[in-house]
Amino acid sequence: MSRFWSPLVHQLSPYVPGEQPKLPHLVKLNTNENPYPPSPAVQAAIQAELGADAARLRLYPDPSASALRASIAAAHGLTPEQVFVGNGSDEVLAHAFMALLNHRDAQGAPRPLLYPDITYSFYPTYCRLYGITPLTVPLDERFQIRVDDLIAAARASNAGGVIFPNPNAPTGCGIARSEIERLLTALPDCVVVVDEAYVDFGAESALPLIAAHPNLLVVHTLSKSRSLAGLRVGFAAGQAELVEALVRVKDSFNSYPLDRLALVGAQAAIEDVAWFEQTRGAVIRSRELLVTELAALGFEVLPSQANFVFARHPAHAGAALQQALRERAIIVRHFTRPERIANHLRITVGTPAECAALVEALRQIV
Amino acid sequence: MSRFWSPLVHQLSPYVPGEQPKLPHLVKLNTNENPYPPSPAVQAAIQAELGADAARLRLYPDPSASALRASIAAAHGLTPEQVFVGNGSDEVLAHAFMALLNHRDAQGAPRPLLYPDITYSFYPTYCRLYGITPLTVPLDERFQIRVDDLIAAARASNAGGVIFPNPNAPTGCGIARSEIERLLTALPDCVVVVDEAYVDFGAESALPLIAAHPNLLVVHTLSKSRSLAGLRVGFAAGQAELVEALVRVKDSFNSYPLDRLALVGAQAAIEDVAWFEQTRGAVIRSRELLVTELAALGFEVLPSQANFVFARHPAHAGAALQQALRERAIIVRHFTRPERIANHLRITVGTPAECAALVEALRQIV
Repeated sequence: MSRFWSPLVHQLSPYVPGEQPKLPHLVKLNTNENPYPPSPAVQAAIQAELGADAARLRLYPDPSASALRASIAAAHGLTPEQVFVGNGSDEVLAHAFMALLNHRDAQGAPRPLLYPDITYSFYPTYCRLYGITPLTVPLDERFQIRVDDLIAAARASNAGGVIFPNPNAPTGCGIARSEIERLLTALPDCVVVVDEAYVDFGAESALPLIAAHPNLLVVHTLSKSRSLAGLRVGFAAGQAELVEALVRVKDSFNSYPLDRLALVGAQAAIEDVAWFEQTRGAVIRSRELLVTELAALGFEVLPSQANFVFARHPAHAGAALQQALRERAIIVRHFTRPERIANHLRITVGTPAECAALVEALRQIV
Repeated sequence: MSRFWSPLVHQLSPYVPGEQPKLPHLVKLNTNENPYPPSPAVQAAIQAELGADAARLRLYPDPSASALRASIAAAHGLTPEQVFVGNGSDEVLAHAFMALLNHRDAQGAPRPLLYPDITYSFYPTYCRLYGITPLTVPLDERFQIRVDDLIAAARASNAGGVIFPNPNAPTGCGIARSEIERLLTALPDCVVVVDEAYVDFGAESALPLIAAHPNLLVVHTLSKSRSLAGLRVGFAAGQAELVEALVRVKDSFNSYPLDRLALVGAQAAIEDVAWFEQTRGAVIRSRELLVTELAALGFEVLPSQANFVFARHPAHAGAALQQALRERAIIVRHFTRPERIANHLRITVGTPAECAALVEALRQIV
């Protein structure tokens, strides 16, 4: 606390990312990183941009990221004007909260932003940062997002926006594209942001709905399915009108959010479709095996379409399991709140060897 | 315009960065990039982090940038808790506007933010983004910042903050550290941000004042004197209480603003003091020669402590000069507003060959 702080700062309770332990020899299954390296084309593209003496780094990058946006657009059947890029999908989401999700009614009263009660914990943080009123909608008894509940809550509250991950985090459960389309059609005056950080591991993307739905923004990251958490690139896609709002906020904040190496590395990753298909396929196969093995140990595992699984054991507390794994040098993520998930663990799908080490450790523990 | 935009978006008028032309063979003297490449240690550090297969890029970077902050702290006699890093100094400034420069009085009325009437044009953009009330204080007749005028205006308006670049942009004129100390002492309840983007080219840094002044935040970039505009790294330094406010905003916005390559590249640049001294010395010598040659052509050149000069010719309009240079493939920056600088050109100090080409072109034109 300080008299020099803007009043808002006193009210913030920042997001706490998963631990990034600096110890070697850990099996690190806590932040949903991809177990495989990025495409070899990423290394080659960054090398080429670096050159012999890194001389190009003295020059500003392209502030509009034209080449990267063109690649993303081509990969998804969009135009470059429908693509916005940022410094990780968290920055893209932050700009979306400010640019598209902060609405008031004709009387000046806040229109709430809807999201599931169990979801990405950065959403309430953004709401506090930008003074947005959140309204949570409970998942159903099977931890699923129910579109009917979102529609009913949005109508009852005159919501200004809806946001959810698909598949949801930390549950891993996805909903069908047809359900998202139903939501978009039912709430034509409401911006709907679908956060598809994990979509490439088995859920249906909403990107094909953009052409028909001016109220849809889809957010992707290269951190997960492109193995580039360390390069910080994410993007949003929507009709040009929505993207323009993001550009206006970005150009009022930081003209050059992506450095030269990130721009070329991300483009190379997007363009190497074969590597993408191969590595995401390997993660999906490992996940299916992991789910089977965890179930055999007595775990209840939610159906996952992500690169992680969300599981609880009826006879063991979540915190105790996490601690017992940590003593065996395996790090997983555990959320103490809300209470309904306090006994679940969120476990990233690692390499086959890492998954085997996890299962063996859990076998000893349970 | 769109009904899906948050109301704020309609009011934004984004910052317009200097043009980044993609044509080859231009003499590009419009965005104050360093004419020399970064330290060879930057190339080596990025290579080492990339490794043979870029595998580390699959992992998140250190969200607290501990190693980089330790290097910056060591270089300037600070502790790591007194250092905040961000995605270019523009992002650092944006967070500072939100975290430290948005104040209201006991009655809830806005306390204005003071800055010079001729200064970095991103400041009014940040004010619009965050709803801060700006109050400009005119430079004197010699285009200098007068601390007495800032003090008087701050007292008269109950200002919540003061920000200015030192040396100022686009004038290039610096003020003495003793003057900044006088300002800090006179306004102990007011946050003073000194934006030292260009300080390494000859002005006096305020960093040594941090220990005694809890109301001082100093902002630096690695884009200019470290030749890393393409890598996007900047930092702020101040007492830990001020830095904590920036961290709270940053962790409510984007946990990982610096990618792995930017972190190690920036650290290598900070630690190569010999390269820094050699390249900034070369820029300063080129500037002194350029000032002499421009004066010989009849230009009025403001005394510059930056890596650019700000000059006008009594017989030629600024826009016409800019256009005539462009026709000779030389790009410089020209501001149409405010009117008082409409005939000035801001010219980046290039290599000796680039400076010679500029002078020769101007000789033909005038």
